Amino acid sequence: MTGFVSLVGAGPGDPELLTLRALRRLRDADLVLNDALVQAELLELAPKAQRFYVGKRAGRHSIDQGGIHQLMIRAARRGQRVVRLKAGDPFVLGRGGEEALALDAAGIAYEVVPGLSSALAAPLLAGIPLTHRGISAAFTVVSGHAEAAYAPVLDSIAPNALTLVVLMGVAQRAQIAGRLIARGWTAATPAALLFGASQPGSFTQTTTLGELAAGASVPATELPAVLVIGEVVSLASVIGQVGHLGHVHTVPLAERSL
Amino acid sequence: MTGFVSLVGAGPGDPELLTLRALRRLRDADLVLNDALVQAELLELAPKAQRFYVGKRAGRHSIDQGGIHQLMIRAARRGQRVVRLKAGDPFVLGRGGEEALALDAAGIAYEVVPGLSSALAAPLLAGIPLTHRGISAAFTVVSGHAEAAYAPVLDSIAPNALTLVVLMGVAQRAQIAGRLIARGWTAATPAALLFGASQPGSFTQTTTLGELAAGASVPATELPAVLVIGEVVSLASVIGQVGHLGHVHTVPLAERSL
Repeated sequence: MTGFVSLVGAGPGDPELLTLRALRRLRDADLVLNDALVQAELLELAPKAQRFYVGKRAGRHSIDQGGIHQLMIRAARRGQRVVRLKAGDPFVLGRGGEEALALDAAGIAYEVVPGLSSALAAPLLAGIPLTHRGISAAFTVVSGHAEAAYAPVLDSIAPNALTLVVLMGVAQRAQIAGRLIARGWTAATPAALLFGASQPGSFTQTTTLGELAAGASVPATELPAVLVIGEVVSLASVIGQVGHLGHVHTVPLAERSL
Repeated sequence: MTGFVSLVGAGPGDPELLTLRALRRLRDADLVLNDALVQAELLELAPKAQRFYVGKRAGRHSIDQGGIHQLMIRAARRGQRVVRLKAGDPFVLGRGGEEALALDAAGIAYEVVPGLSSALAAPLLAGIPLTHRGISAAFTVVSGHAEAAYAPVLDSIAPNALTLVVLMGVAQRAQIAGRLIARGWTAATPAALLFGASQPGSFTQTTTLGELAAGASVPATELPAVLVIGEVVSLASVIGQVGHLGHVHTVPLAERSL
């Protein structure tokens, strides 16, 4: 009896944006270990599985990273098919590499199933192409959670050279925008905060680096946010308007709380 | 009778890495317009659809971008459900934004369905996390197709500051590596060429910037390649070894019930 661990990307939230392989792994799972950002709807796709919440969010801290590794390893050794369900993509800013290394060190058979990262899917669903001819030829993805991690990255990119996508950066939005302007980015650079991509109640707030640096407020919400900075954001005013099937909800200017 | 266009991301090639929404759109499609890089296996998922190849590849040039726009628009005006099936993700280096703008200008209803970009999925399937604590906090994605597009991007990033992912860059690999070294990247920086991610026959070639700049050869292959540059590539020697399940079709397509 040999267990197996699948590190599975859950995508941005909407079950329709799961891959077929992720759905298959959920259906076959004996145990699902899920993050805070994984939607409850996704867990219903694993009817046979015991479910264990291992998320960390805004102060609440259920279990540390080493504890997650031990849960996966022990379940696999009991012969279980384990799905470690991670929001977005397992190998983008989600400690998936550390989990893979821990499984490898313990001699556990595992695989990694890619998922749609909200770094790419959130802009797309809001009508923002990360690259566009004549506007932007590249994009950079960085976490905005900790200044020690994002500051060297922001400082290493020339001003307005590409599209910047910041995950987990809504709390630090003023510091991030201020840092970019201090580095030479123009204050008029369009920016968008994309809340809850693909999830019920998702909405977009468009702004500029200058407004963010000046302390623009955001609505109180539990939805995760993706911050996109660059000229491509301006395309959302065209592409975003017809994308209602893609779950775009553009907030009228008057209702924006900037 | 109103037609509708879905710009759909096909992902890296393996049908199991399609999203559920993409599969649904294919099944319902009256017409599929597909790229060169889209696998034939994916087209079988659209049994009702007329199929039209609109790819451009290595000199062969079947139809120009404006022609693709006109095909979509005319079919939608005839009332057809059109799937414009694009390799990877529609809004990453694939002119999806231009196609959306053309549909908008023509007053055609459309949506954009995200897909797994090979920029992220190819490294994952090769055992390379694009970010990893203590190694890399960010990644940049750029096209290596044309020097005029990639040169300003490469020149705008400080040496060895983050993970670099180059799509369509295998032909320009020596020029790209040479440019980075001239900018100050260390010649010993690990790099990997990932051929045919998720497709039959996929393989990884690990190397360094120095070797690439010196003219390292690659096997003759029709498979598309993703070039990853940065210290995270070294993790593939551990994580990549157990990832064989990430490349295997465990269930024959005919038996898949999704």
